[in-house]
Amino acid sequence: MFIRFITTGGTIDKIYFDDLSQFEVGESQVQHILAEGLVDFDFEVVPLMHKDSLEVTDDDRRKLCEFIEQDDARRYVITHGTDTMPETAEALRGLSDRTIVLTGALTPARFRTTDAIFNVGMAVAVAQVAEPGVYIAMSGQVFEAGKVRKNRAENRFEKIV
Amino acid sequence: MFIRFITTGGTIDKIYFDDLSQFEVGESQVQHILAEGLVDFDFEVVPLMHKDSLEVTDDDRRKLCEFIEQDDARRYVITHGTDTMPETAEALRGLSDRTIVLTGALTPARFRTTDAIFNVGMAVAVAQVAEPGVYIAMSGQVFEAGKVRKNRAENRFEKIV
Amino acid sequence: MFIRFITTGGTIDKIYFDDLSQFEVGESQVQHILAEGLVDFDFEVVPLMHKDSLEVTDDDRRKLCEFIEQDDARRYVITHGTDTMPETAEALRGLSDRTIVLTGALTPARFRTTDAIFNVGMAVAVAQVAEPGVYIAMSGQVFEAGKVRKNRAENRFEKIV
Amino acid sequence: MFIRFITTGGTIDKIYFDDLSQFEVGESQVQHILAEGLVDFDFEVVPLMHKDSLEVTDDDRRKLCEFIEQDDARRYVITHGTDTMPETAEALRGLSDRTIVLTGALTPARFRTTDAIFNVGMAVAVAQVAEPGVYIAMSGQVFEAGKVRKNRAENRFEKIV
Repeated sequence: MFIRFITTGGTIDKIYFDDLSQFEVGESQVQHILAEGLVDFDFEVVPLMHKDSLEVTDDDRRKLCEFIEQDDARRYVITHGTDTMPETAEALRGLSDRTIVLTGALTPARFRTTDAIFNVGMAVAVAQVAEPGVYIAMSGQVFEAGKVRKNRAENRFEKIV
Repeated sequence: MFIRFITTGGTIDKIYFDDLSQFEVGESQVQHILAEGLVDFDFEVVPLMHKDSLEVTDDDRRKLCEFIEQDDARRYVITHGTDTMPETAEALRGLSDRTIVLTGALTPARFRTTDAIFNVGMAVAVAQVAEPGVYIAMSGQVFEAGKVRKNRAENRFEKIV
Repeated sequence: MFIRFITTGGTIDKIYFDDLSQFEVGESQVQHILAEGLVDFDFEVVPLMHKDSLEVTDDDRRKLCEFIEQDDARRYVITHGTDTMPETAEALRGLSDRTIVLTGALTPARFRTTDAIFNVGMAVAVAQVAEPGVYIAMSGQVFEAGKVRKNRAENRFEKIV
Repeated sequence: MFIRFITTGGTIDKIYFDDLSQFEVGESQVQHILAEGLVDFDFEVVPLMHKDSLEVTDDDRRKLCEFIEQDDARRYVITHGTDTMPETAEALRGLSDRTIVLTGALTPARFRTTDAIFNVGMAVAVAQVAEPGVYIAMSGQVFEAGKVRKNRAENRFEKIV
């Protein structure tokens, strides 16, 4: 079993710079999370972007699509900022024969209390178990691309009904 | 979406008592893990046993089976000690029309570095996505009951080939 | 033994809001840190300000001085942003018969890896053991007010020689 | 400023072995704690024993005494199991011209919630600030050797009055 992880930035990878008193996207936390999960399968992590979700452009989404199209893996976990995660999921729907799961975090992985570890755990399971397709794993749930939105007021992901 | 969590003890719930200088099974950590995962679905946690995996008897397994048989949920996550998790998974195989996922941890959930959060994240995803059946989510992988063993020397779960 | 804790904001109390993707000063973390330290002495926490260190004005320092002057405790721990902690320490030097210790953190207390707990531990010890005076406890060291600066390039506190 | 750290075992360094379902004294956690505290002073860590507190003998205490007597540092932090920490502190009282602080933890340092970091922070401060003598830093307090006991029923250290 092989999973390709693609990191694009977002809250999950945020770090804090004391001298600036602000947060910026730092190096990917996925490896640390997988090590903590004591995972025992083959994987590679490709850091494709370091962007806040709101900065991700349609051009970025095209590049992500092309990267996966030309790649030979069957299972993908993509870490992504939460605000435009549903849009990026939609943009990947054309890709066939692959199980692609987007996830991220509402609180940075470097925090003592964070949803990052739980979410990556979910994504890794979905990448193994689900039918080919594009999914989002957030808020303890697995959503299909195109049927999910972020409810910013409530700070959670929910099904579009 | 509703998941019934059943806790049976094991390393995941171990606590430490200084005066005895030893570890004992403590109150279930599943609620804390779900809170940290910012999950947004309905669930109930049923603490059925507080046992080390090696102390779980065939009688305990029968009770677990009966509990699920008489219960009306379709999705279950069972936290369990690791040493006999494969045996308990086997014992549940007769139950139909339900997705049942066993998980646990090689390091207690109260530790700073633990596989517990990742594993419960996996289990929650499998309970939603997988076909009815009995599964084990450990070592970053999803195994079918009857096709998995714990490799104690390597401290991981692996497929029986 | 009684210690009065005064919180003024700073990195130690920073939280992260996903919807804004920025950090803000949140509720004081001192109580949580003392609970984790299993402390067994009497204390009270007074949240006096919620400011980044660079926003603390001379007027704020006067108010802090006046608060302590009119208060009857002998031991104080003040949590404060790091950038102007030495200035605030200087401003408190006139207060006699009290042991006053300023501390804070270079990484927020809510982070998984943070100097906040260690620093508050140091400050609590200094408040008990040191002669009356004003001190800064940072970078694993105890400095006297007026003889310490923050080296921003190196992100540490050091003695002025 | 130089501090010699001596580690002797105890709860602070406990690890958990899943295959045995039990706790044992592991490698010293002091370096990790100092790194997390972002300390900036010179130190060395000497791992002298790996013992539970109740296993420490009078002979062990003599060796500890001799080690310090023949050593040239002026400041010591000794990590030690909690049950006999007061006895070991007493045994070191003859050593002059040194500030010696014993500390440890009621919960292992590897736990997510632990008093270990706070306690080592206190001990590091006392080693710098206190008069020569032997001290215990536990339960948020600094005690003089000979005037402190562990209250096991309450799981805390307290002054002997």
